[in-house]
Amino acid sequence: MPLAMNRDVFITCAVTGSGDTTGKSPHVPITPAQIAASAIDAAKAGAAVVHCHVRNPETGAPSRRTDLYRELTDRIRSADVDVVLNLTAGMGGDLVFGDVEAPVPFNPDCTDMAGATERVEPIAACLPEICTLDCGTMNFSLGDYVMTNTPSMLRAMARKMTALGVRPEIEAFDTGHLWFAKQLVAEGLIEDPVMVQLCMGVPWGAPDDLNTFMAMVNNVPSNWTFSAFSIGRNAMAYPAAAALAGGNVRVGLEDNLYIARGQLATNAQLVEKAATVVTAMGARLLSPAEVREKLKLIKR
Amino acid sequence: MPLAMNRDVFITCAVTGSGDTTGKSPHVPITPAQIAASAIDAAKAGAAVVHCHVRNPETGAPSRRTDLYRELTDRIRSADVDVVLNLTAGMGGDLVFGDVEAPVPFNPDCTDMAGATERVEPIAACLPEICTLDCGTMNFSLGDYVMTNTPSMLRAMARKMTALGVRPEIEAFDTGHLWFAKQLVAEGLIEDPVMVQLCMGVPWGAPDDLNTFMAMVNNVPSNWTFSAFSIGRNAMAYPAAAALAGGNVRVGLEDNLYIARGQLATNAQLVEKAATVVTAMGARLLSPAEVREKLKLIKR
Amino acid sequence: MPLAMNRDVFITCAVTGSGDTTGKSPHVPITPAQIAASAIDAAKAGAAVVHCHVRNPETGAPSRRTDLYRELTDRIRSADVDVVLNLTAGMGGDLVFGDVEAPVPFNPDCTDMAGATERVEPIAACLPEICTLDCGTMNFSLGDYVMTNTPSMLRAMARKMTALGVRPEIEAFDTGHLWFAKQLVAEGLIEDPVMVQLCMGVPWGAPDDLNTFMAMVNNVPSNWTFSAFSIGRNAMAYPAAAALAGGNVRVGLEDNLYIARGQLATNAQLVEKAATVVTAMGARLLSPAEVREKLKLIKR
Amino acid sequence: MPLAMNRDVFITCAVTGSGDTTGKSPHVPITPAQIAASAIDAAKAGAAVVHCHVRNPETGAPSRRTDLYRELTDRIRSADVDVVLNLTAGMGGDLVFGDVEAPVPFNPDCTDMAGATERVEPIAACLPEICTLDCGTMNFSLGDYVMTNTPSMLRAMARKMTALGVRPEIEAFDTGHLWFAKQLVAEGLIEDPVMVQLCMGVPWGAPDDLNTFMAMVNNVPSNWTFSAFSIGRNAMAYPAAAALAGGNVRVGLEDNLYIARGQLATNAQLVEKAATVVTAMGARLLSPAEVREKLKLIKR
Ligand SMILES: [Zn+2]
Ligand SMILES: [Zn+2]
Ligand SMILES: [Zn+2]
Ligand SMILES: [Zn+2]
Repeated sequence: MPLAMNRDVFITCAVTGSGDTTGKSPHVPITPAQIAASAIDAAKAGAAVVHCHVRNPETGAPSRRTDLYRELTDRIRSADVDVVLNLTAGMGGDLVFGDVEAPVPFNPDCTDMAGATERVEPIAACLPEICTLDCGTMNFSLGDYVMTNTPSMLRAMARKMTALGVRPEIEAFDTGHLWFAKQLVAEGLIEDPVMVQLCMGVPWGAPDDLNTFMAMVNNVPSNWTFSAFSIGRNAMAYPAAAALAGGNVRVGLEDNLYIARGQLATNAQLVEKAATVVTAMGARLLSPAEVREKLKLIKR
Repeated sequence: MPLAMNRDVFITCAVTGSGDTTGKSPHVPITPAQIAASAIDAAKAGAAVVHCHVRNPETGAPSRRTDLYRELTDRIRSADVDVVLNLTAGMGGDLVFGDVEAPVPFNPDCTDMAGATERVEPIAACLPEICTLDCGTMNFSLGDYVMTNTPSMLRAMARKMTALGVRPEIEAFDTGHLWFAKQLVAEGLIEDPVMVQLCMGVPWGAPDDLNTFMAMVNNVPSNWTFSAFSIGRNAMAYPAAAALAGGNVRVGLEDNLYIARGQLATNAQLVEKAATVVTAMGARLLSPAEVREKLKLIKR
Repeated sequence: MPLAMNRDVFITCAVTGSGDTTGKSPHVPITPAQIAASAIDAAKAGAAVVHCHVRNPETGAPSRRTDLYRELTDRIRSADVDVVLNLTAGMGGDLVFGDVEAPVPFNPDCTDMAGATERVEPIAACLPEICTLDCGTMNFSLGDYVMTNTPSMLRAMARKMTALGVRPEIEAFDTGHLWFAKQLVAEGLIEDPVMVQLCMGVPWGAPDDLNTFMAMVNNVPSNWTFSAFSIGRNAMAYPAAAALAGGNVRVGLEDNLYIARGQLATNAQLVEKAATVVTAMGARLLSPAEVREKLKLIKR
Repeated sequence: MPLAMNRDVFITCAVTGSGDTTGKSPHVPITPAQIAASAIDAAKAGAAVVHCHVRNPETGAPSRRTDLYRELTDRIRSADVDVVLNLTAGMGGDLVFGDVEAPVPFNPDCTDMAGATERVEPIAACLPEICTLDCGTMNFSLGDYVMTNTPSMLRAMARKMTALGVRPEIEAFDTGHLWFAKQLVAEGLIEDPVMVQLCMGVPWGAPDDLNTFMAMVNNVPSNWTFSAFSIGRNAMAYPAAAALAGGNVRVGLEDNLYIARGQLATNAQLVEKAATVVTAMGARLLSPAEVREKLKLIKR
């Protein structure tokens, strides 16, 4: 009943994401070499896990090319620092409609809807220890972009991840996503130990106020592991919230570019600051090996 | 700080909905005449508001034909009982993908994506006092159906409703929908007095446990009016939750077919039971005229 | 994660209490015969448990005379209806100070501070199935009365109750009382199955708003049984709150005299109304035998 | 609706308290000179407010001697650093009963029950900018000590503080204390701007888990200023919780002796660490002058 703060916290660094951010900060890595380098620096700064997307090396646009994931994976695996590799499987569910008076056909430039096998292909090729599974469909952030993951698609992807021996990191952007994740677990499509990332403050998902956050935390089964983050202005406030509520921490340039008002930062700097907060609060940081043991990850 | 129970409660009856329920209960009304009759009975049983969809009179399938809405509206307006008319504007955002390995093209049989003007057409034709505005996109219920309402579509529809002098009833199926509704209000697209329906327990939206419900209630601005319901097994438990939390009540065959385990019910019976609960708890029921005054509705 | 409503609810009727209420309603029972009769009527109306205090038959003042408890117990045990007997052990911790400028010595007229053995004496004499244990010290209600139960006193009383084979019903009037109850359980002084009554809305304990109530509910261990009530104006609203949150129900003249604004009621009427609410919500009522089995009570 | 974190935080340092801690850490200040020195160091480390008790210079026992308060006040006022002075008015309500079998008479060694005028005497003599008002009666911490503040005593003390022009800092150790504080404000005995300290995690008051904390925060009126702390092991975790929830921060040797497991600390070190956390989270620290303006304090 006294504060169930997590005193053994691991930090995930979300290194680059798919956002339109490469022009907004020189620190957002683009090429596999840059992403790996930034991830490795983050690991040295205290991140036990690095969550990576890849980008088109020429344009900086998000990509799901397997060759890029493979280069990235190789570089991280051959680094002189140990870190748990987490790759996104969130690409390929991007839907943008046409005009409000003619929503269909889609906007073909922004829409990228792939099948389950194709979406999981980079995961199958690289076999990271963790990959993400965005557990729902929603209006995502300030554009008119719909993040699209239907129940049947999620079942198919979860089944593939489990078969590959890659731990799904469930991403829950609202309370209903968490509910569906529990359904996937109930159906046996995701196995113990279960890991969920509570993704707070992304318009138009769950807002990041503490009442909403606690409602989500109260609905995480007690034998699951959770982590949480918020984006933008509240990104560096959320490591404290996550640890206080019993969870783990995610920071990184996917979620936020600034370490303080007006000060752009590197991934390593964001990790370092999060580490400062949670250790000052009385937690210690888990190593990659400890995370691997906790989540029964298969290192390859 | 003591219990802020609502002691002046209005009941909305959601008369028929669009669900695949006509074969499951003989009480689900299908034709405009049946829907009007069931709505009128509900009003006599204590509902101050009737929320109506229309159905294809031959098949029972959901429809958005304006002539059906008009017949329904005329019948309700000429009834011998006063009731506030609330029509859905939720149709026309129905998206079902193809196979998990080939999500596009859509499943053309189940997909119905209309433009903003078309979606609001029955509202413009009938000018009900209230119409619904589903404030988000989500995997909706147990099929693979995506309820699709993008930000630009919602802005366009809200603007039209406000211009028509029809009060939007914001439907929030998860915490992020409520957040976006506040954005619409902030942008001036929805005017005071603001009314929101908290739609709980619809897979895969907000679950209806009290922690999640209270997180949503805590995020409703204090000068808004809210109502709440849950579906299925918890539908008849939720009138109490809604009143206790300071809100109003919705029941009806759109949400639930049963008045008790195994006992099918009419809309009037569901309304009567909800009225029993909230009056036993110490609330009184608002009349249609009182709701009209509270929400500044324009009766036509 | 969907609503964890309790669908197997038992109702406790708090028959008379110790409040200064005998002049405010003709239905508040005073003599053991009256209290027994009112309790029996409540049982017939659906209460599985009757929680009783005794009063001085001449004055109506609260009493802790063992002979009165014994008469009451005999009458209830010989009734033609089965009911679980719950006797208060809350008397004998009443402290009222002198003037604000001279708090000591106490006000001798209102102060009644007894030792642990003396406080439990009627329990030892009557061996009811349940007796209450008020788990804390607080300013109690609108007077200047301090309900006094120190940790050492509570440990001594709990030990005695457990030794007698009488199940303590922990009364928690604020969040800290619940915390201390968990301490008593951790120390082995209260044994499984543990039962707690969440006593809401008593000035100056926990207010009965749903945020506070849910904070308490979230802190009840999952293997405990809980019940809840609020007093006065919200008393008849709380059965719904208790059932919705997964708990059981208490009503009765100890907590509230009215069944509706301005309408005085009997215990049986209050029980009947609570039963109406919770069964309309979809719960069924547990019988005394079922409560006995659930809480492993020893009937004597 | 997004996180309502407080980005303009002030830190209060609770310099010494009345706890039996002087033998447990060499850093707990005892004499007025030591307390003033420690307070001044805390101010230099970032505390805008220093909350002070005094102790018997020979024994280290808590004291309410006015001469000690006056020496302390003079020293702090003549320091080369500005800081808001907050003196306790919590002494003089200490009640310890006799044996469990004979609770009265009191234990005369530990009991100190004074009248309202006497309790406020050091405040009247020193006229600090803030003084505390513990808004309730409870079993306090691990001994058998009852912190005693009845409604009539609190009304009398609040009236005196307001008449003196000293801002009461309401101390709420459980949800019911906060409720009574609102009553004092409603009665006009405490004037705007109202300031409350949420005192979490003190056995047997409100536990410091986030559900309970948020229930209290949700019940703080929006036009009040609040601060929060927890004691012992969670003391250094709570500055983050307080800021995240929209409040201000208290740390200091009254609440906790350690800066990390096994490492004793000075007040200045505790303040510095709290400052590290809240600034890393994106808040800035308010100066004493800013606090004075915010709370309309009268500096003398
Ligand atoms: Zn990502
Ligand atoms: Zn509808
Ligand atoms: Zn009682
Ligand atoms: Zn103090």
